[in-house]
Amino acid sequence: MKDITPVADGWELRVPDHGSVPAQVPGCVHTDLLAAGLIPDPYLDLNEAEVAWVGRADWTYRTVLGPLDGPGEAGHERADLVFDGLDTVAEIRLGDRVLGATRNMHRGYRFDVTGLLDGAGGTPLTVAFTSAYTEAERVRALLGDRPNAYPEPFPYLRKMACSFGWDWGPTLVTAGIWKPVRIERWSTARLAGVAPLVTVDGATGRVEARIDLERTPSGAARPLTVRLRVGGSVAEATAAPGTDHLTVSCEVPDARLWWPRGYGEQPLYACEVSLLDGDEQLDGWERRIGFRSVELDTSPDEGGSGFTLVVNGVRIFARGVNWIPEDVFPSRIGADTYRLRLEQAADAGVDLVRVWGGGIYESEHFYDACDELGLLVWQDFLFACAAYPEEKPLRGEVEAEARENVARLMPHASLVVWNGNNENLWGFRDWEWEEQLAGESWGEGYYLGLLPRVVAEVDPTRPYWAGSPWSGSWDHHPNDPEHGTAHSWEVWNREDYAAYQDSVPRFVAEFGWQAPAAYATMRRALSDDPLAPDSPGMLHHQKAGDGNGKLARGLAPHFPVPADFDGWHYLTQVNQARAVAAGVEHWRSHWPRCAGTVVWQLNDCWPVTSWSAIDGDGRFKPLYHELKRLYADRLLTVQERDGALALAVVNQSGQEWAGTAWLRRVDVDGAVLAEARVPFTAAA
Amino acid sequence: MKDITPVADGWELRVPDHGSVPAQVPGCVHTDLLAAGLIPDPYLDLNEAEVAWVGRADWTYRTVLGPLDGPGEAGHERADLVFDGLDTVAEIRLGDRVLGATRNMHRGYRFDVTGLLDGAGGTPLTVAFTSAYTEAERVRALLGDRPNAYPEPFPYLRKMACSFGWDWGPTLVTAGIWKPVRIERWSTARLAGVAPLVTVDGATGRVEARIDLERTPSGAARPLTVRLRVGGSVAEATAAPGTDHLTVSCEVPDARLWWPRGYGEQPLYACEVSLLDGDEQLDGWERRIGFRSVELDTSPDEGGSGFTLVVNGVRIFARGVNWIPEDVFPSRIGADTYRLRLEQAADAGVDLVRVWGGGIYESEHFYDACDELGLLVWQDFLFACAAYPEEKPLRGEVEAEARENVARLMPHASLVVWNGNNENLWGFRDWEWEEQLAGESWGEGYYLGLLPRVVAEVDPTRPYWAGSPWSGSWDHHPNDPEHGTAHSWEVWNREDYAAYQDSVPRFVAEFGWQAPAAYATMRRALSDDPLAPDSPGMLHHQKAGDGNGKLARGLAPHFPVPADFDGWHYLTQVNQARAVAAGVEHWRSHWPRCAGTVVWQLNDCWPVTSWSAIDGDGRFKPLYHELKRLYADRLLTVQERDGALALAVVNQSGQEWAGTAWLRRVDVDGAVLAEARVPFTAAA
Repeated sequence: MKDITPVADGWELRVPDHGSVPAQVPGCVHTDLLAAGLIPDPYLDLNEAEVAWVGRADWTYRTVLGPLDGPGEAGHERADLVFDGLDTVAEIRLGDRVLGATRNMHRGYRFDVTGLLDGAGGTPLTVAFTSAYTEAERVRALLGDRPNAYPEPFPYLRKMACSFGWDWGPTLVTAGIWKPVRIERWSTARLAGVAPLVTVDGATGRVEARIDLERTPSGAARPLTVRLRVGGSVAEATAAPGTDHLTVSCEVPDARLWWPRGYGEQPLYACEVSLLDGDEQLDGWERRIGFRSVELDTSPDEGGSGFTLVVNGVRIFARGVNWIPEDVFPSRIGADTYRLRLEQAADAGVDLVRVWGGGIYESEHFYDACDELGLLVWQDFLFACAAYPEEKPLRGEVEAEARENVARLMPHASLVVWNGNNENLWGFRDWEWEEQLAGESWGEGYYLGLLPRVVAEVDPTRPYWAGSPWSGSWDHHPNDPEHGTAHSWEVWNREDYAAYQDSVPRFVAEFGWQAPAAYATMRRALSDDPLAPDSPGMLHHQKAGDGNGKLARGLAPHFPVPADFDGWHYLTQVNQARAVAAGVEHWRSHWPRCAGTVVWQLNDCWPVTSWSAIDGDGRFKPLYHELKRLYADRLLTVQERDGALALAVVNQSGQEWAGTAWLRRVDVDGAVLAEARVPFTAAA
Repeated sequence: MKDITPVADGWELRVPDHGSVPAQVPGCVHTDLLAAGLIPDPYLDLNEAEVAWVGRADWTYRTVLGPLDGPGEAGHERADLVFDGLDTVAEIRLGDRVLGATRNMHRGYRFDVTGLLDGAGGTPLTVAFTSAYTEAERVRALLGDRPNAYPEPFPYLRKMACSFGWDWGPTLVTAGIWKPVRIERWSTARLAGVAPLVTVDGATGRVEARIDLERTPSGAARPLTVRLRVGGSVAEATAAPGTDHLTVSCEVPDARLWWPRGYGEQPLYACEVSLLDGDEQLDGWERRIGFRSVELDTSPDEGGSGFTLVVNGVRIFARGVNWIPEDVFPSRIGADTYRLRLEQAADAGVDLVRVWGGGIYESEHFYDACDELGLLVWQDFLFACAAYPEEKPLRGEVEAEARENVARLMPHASLVVWNGNNENLWGFRDWEWEEQLAGESWGEGYYLGLLPRVVAEVDPTRPYWAGSPWSGSWDHHPNDPEHGTAHSWEVWNREDYAAYQDSVPRFVAEFGWQAPAAYATMRRALSDDPLAPDSPGMLHHQKAGDGNGKLARGLAPHFPVPADFDGWHYLTQVNQARAVAAGVEHWRSHWPRCAGTVVWQLNDCWPVTSWSAIDGDGRFKPLYHELKRLYADRLLTVQERDGALALAVVNQSGQEWAGTAWLRRVDVDGAVLAEARVPFTAAA
């Protein structure tokens, strides 16, 4: 059996003029420097600016490996040094040998280190990071600058885009070994890839596992067995000598269906793959899977062409939220944080979480929690708000990253749609990119060619959509409300939230309204005295262009000008909840024409004024509580229809809802001008 | 009014060691050298090899312009030197000034030469061509070699691919000024672009003309009028000072519909655009248009997803042929040749002509003839059988060429579909390109992104399909018979033509069978004595890999081995007709599941053994005559259905076909074993 030795201990980070400090792996330079007391907490006050130098510096991590037990790496033929993630531009050295260089945060790397770990005193391992700025700016100079919503070089390097700052996040460009490292020692063969295609036909679940093997020279000539076990079912296939790719399929009779929350249970099945040499197990792989079908119905209809998720044959209005990285230093996000935040989403009635393309492919903990909670996941590929070059060296990285992450995430029942990018097709058409680009590549080939091809190849069980917003083809404007997904940002940017009423997009993948973080959060993070909308810390923790102006203009039609900070804080938070309510109630009442609302945004990555429902310290804004009403299975809302007011009865409970509505028209003093009791029945 | 002076006379071509020879413009070096007696006819015997040096050489054309009448270019503010087409890598000099450099055969070029034409003795104009090989090989070295069905560098330069040879054509890489040249003198403003969107709604035709203007400095501040006249209708729009883009729309009541041949008439309307400065006409543009709607129905159905042309609401089984350049030297193809060849197609019952992507965007004469004859045109973008880099310098050329040609061809009623490429999506998936490419670009971004975007922008009235074959998305194999278009080549390459029966693709965009050219054609072109299938000239004029082997193996199941050349020539020609008949009768009987057959190929570009119905000298092969039967409006054919023989009645006549079929089963001696008279009615 394969031996796995974590490489988590003894790491040091070299700090100029300070020798070395202890380093956490997984971790990053900012958190190591913070732990060593060498930088202030960048989330507090104006400290972000003070630590900007960290992102421009190069950093080296070092530890010593082994010596491992016994000669020849404990009797194994092969030893691999495996990094699940390196952020980002790294050169890896073992002893005096360069193992390789990396330039993609979103990939894992494996190096054959057989025979290199026998040094009696151990073997030094160093991972030297070049500043992401240095490399991204080099590539930008090589390929030419291209349009970008932000003046930062993130499109030129495969690193979390919002590391470089966003309109809700700080610019904290870190580096580090952000995922686990380990030594894997093995003989004969190992499981190099396991890609399970999970489908269900009637009551029969089916897993078709595509297996890739890697063999040692001595293992090349051996017949090996791959065993797949799902629930109580077992299937085996033989990998003949020289065969490194095979498929093994297994059926599960009477499979229990996995449902999104509110529609049924979330039964998960253990799916185990074993690689056997005779009776000896060489390697194993285990994930949890769920049986459910998913389709994306985008077929033409009288209203254009929609965007409706169909799970197990049931058409679903998606009660969604957008998810951004929960921390600008994602190595710091633990399983408990993921679980807590996603439980909070579920508690608010959410049934779909969109992982936004300026962040990361999240860790297993995220998708595990979604599997368990019945949260549908919409996963963006990691492109946001900029023109991305299609030339080398980016092109090959994009394909490798896509293949790796599609295969990694495909076991998860919760994952229901891949999306090509965030706002780039829109940007090309509407944000004057086309003129500036003058024919240069900008990512179109990724979104319309390479990525759908990779998804169709690696995981044909899931739908792909080229972008958000996107109308399905260039025949319509990318943000056409009659086709596909739409982002509704004019309302926040330039209009009153009553204007949500003016349009019924087929699926609202982004819309939202800002509010400050909870009072306690701002008080913890800022030493401003007094706190004011325009006190230095508040202004620094408001990253949106003219954000405070928009807050004020958004308040004006609805409330008097606040007298003081407390009033401003309270009313802007209330106004956020009212704005989002205006959108959700209107759009949800137009089901099935509108098939989803995805509120921008569930969470924050630091203490900031933003569109979030839960702030950077994990505290709820009033919007969070309002979401519980808006996203409840049953919603009554008064909406305009044909120039009159109408009661819309929204029922996603799965059961018929019959009742009597008591309608009253009252004057501003509360006197009843008219009333009626209207019986209603809403089908299941 | 704009003055136009053709630059057609006085051209010379410099020939190493021979001084200069007279040059034709439009023309090319091969035809000039041929006219001067300096090279033998490359279409005869083995001469192709003898003139190969021409394609590797550089060539310079020269003439003298003017002096033009009067000072200041005859009183006009501006003089432009306009080239409709330069083949391909050229530097243009006027006097001692370099006007520019070109690298795309498929574009036109315009140079401002104001003030440069006043020399008393005239001004020398030279166009110096670098060998297309030199440039294509330079770009290949720069970007890296990529997979290609042929060992020639055509994907690295925007020049007719089959210049470099094909499996039916010689390698004759020419250069030259292949389209007209002229001087345009104008003042105030000119029509820089006219793009008419022609649609029809009920009986009302509509033309929305998108106009681009170019103005002189003195014209910048003038309000101008654009007048659009279609049939008896006139509309005007004003271009305010500073406005260079405007739209003028015109409706034609009681518009007569343009129909494909066999479905109705082909009424064409003059569409005239005038640019006026007060009463003075500055510039004019005129084309013929036709009113018809076209859709491509590719919606999912019980059989997969089809590919059915719908013209004026009528679903059409396309009786098609593939078109290749009628001459390897396309400057030599005149209006009469186009008209004759397309009339021959129409006479054979053809109603759709596919312009194949290894050739050219054809001249106006081609599309004019199709407009008049009611031949539907499927136009490929010019990519065939190879991986095409998406990097500079190709990327910008592809977009410019697409925009120019979509706008140029959009007035033509006959043009009904744009297609992204020939066989490249298939090649990527099936021909081991993916492995060889190792992540390099190969054109996918053109076919799935850039080209559909350009078509949607420039001409939203026409459908686009990403390639042939193509199944509509990466969810299915590109050549999946159940989805979209398919190419059926296994039958010719490796099977007997009875195997056409094994599959019913939704649309067969290529299939065919070889035969030698007419006897008289081979006799004219070859001095082989005796002629034999393997005599030197016959072998040289057979470009397909193992072509003669496939001819022999295709004959074997049907005829005895021919005793001599005459027998071989006759039987291989007959066999070609029988093979194509086997395909067409089978597929046509499966309408509406199968919505078209496009025979490879109508024509030839030189005397050669090929899949053509009409040979390189314009002579008919037996296949041509058989096409008349296969593509007749009414066809009776005996086909297998559910294990028994059935009579299929195919009726595309537009009128009900009622009759009685007299069916007889006879033994090999002609004795009647059984007979029946079966009345049938086939709806209109």
